[in-house]
Amino acid sequence: MMKPLDDTYFMKKALQEAEAALEKGEIPIGAVVVIKDRIIARAHNLTETLNDVTAHAEMQAITAAANFLGGKYLKDCTLYVTIEPCQMCAGALYWSQISRVVYGARDEQRGCINMKTKLHPKTVLTGGILEKEASEILKRFFIEKRNLN
Amino acid sequence: MMKPLDDTYFMKKALQEAEAALEKGEIPIGAVVVIKDRIIARAHNLTETLNDVTAHAEMQAITAAANFLGGKYLKDCTLYVTIEPCQMCAGALYWSQISRVVYGARDEQRGCINMKTKLHPKTVLTGGILEKEASEILKRFFIEKRNLN
Repeated sequence: MMKPLDDTYFMKKALQEAEAALEKGEIPIGAVVVIKDRIIARAHNLTETLNDVTAHAEMQAITAAANFLGGKYLKDCTLYVTIEPCQMCAGALYWSQISRVVYGARDEQRGCINMKTKLHPKTVLTGGILEKEASEILKRFFIEKRNLN
Repeated sequence: MMKPLDDTYFMKKALQEAEAALEKGEIPIGAVVVIKDRIIARAHNLTETLNDVTAHAEMQAITAAANFLGGKYLKDCTLYVTIEPCQMCAGALYWSQISRVVYGARDEQRGCINMKTKLHPKTVLTGGILEKEASEILKRFFIEKRNLN
């Protein structure tokens, strides 16, 4: 029997993107955008590589998905991201009117929930999917970084 | 005597960018980034042209300024933008650690002040520079748009 394409399935794809970021020495956060069980955008954090604070995984995924769809609104789309979006990314998601945002681990300090960033009324937010894996890869990054300095 | 390069001078440059957006049928908002009295980035809203909700004037200006400086932090920089930044742009400005943000007119509905988006503690926010001109050009856009539909 085929495995259903559920939130865990797509979050694994986002985690693969986080792994790709880690390999480049980037803070390992990954994202994918899905419409009707199809991945239309994959991205990972590239702030160091591009020297650009706006190059978060979510921002690139939003731009790529809109490019794929040929329109700027992400109706019927779900963004999977390994860590809860920040103010900037939640603000971009607000403008995109995306249907769903699914994150892995919380970001208590700089995430949109505690920062009280508003998502669009059309957007449903779900969290805690592969939470442990998403925070483990971040921890690995910071431990490796500390050991290098 | 030479005119001093003050906030009004640089906001006029941001307004020129808003005019460029208007000519393209974009919501007319413009921005420039200045370091030591020198403009290092100019940008205007391109959300329609690029089919991309993230293509606000400020976002492009932040990316261009970081590219010019060769580093992602906009220390000692001032961003001039004709309208108060939204959650997304204020969130990006937060990450940039920019020294100053100067806006023209308020955006009571979707601006960062009423949305309570946090800027970086290092960032000073000033508003009301050429406020009337900044809101006039927006009004012109919406009147023209209404007449076309």
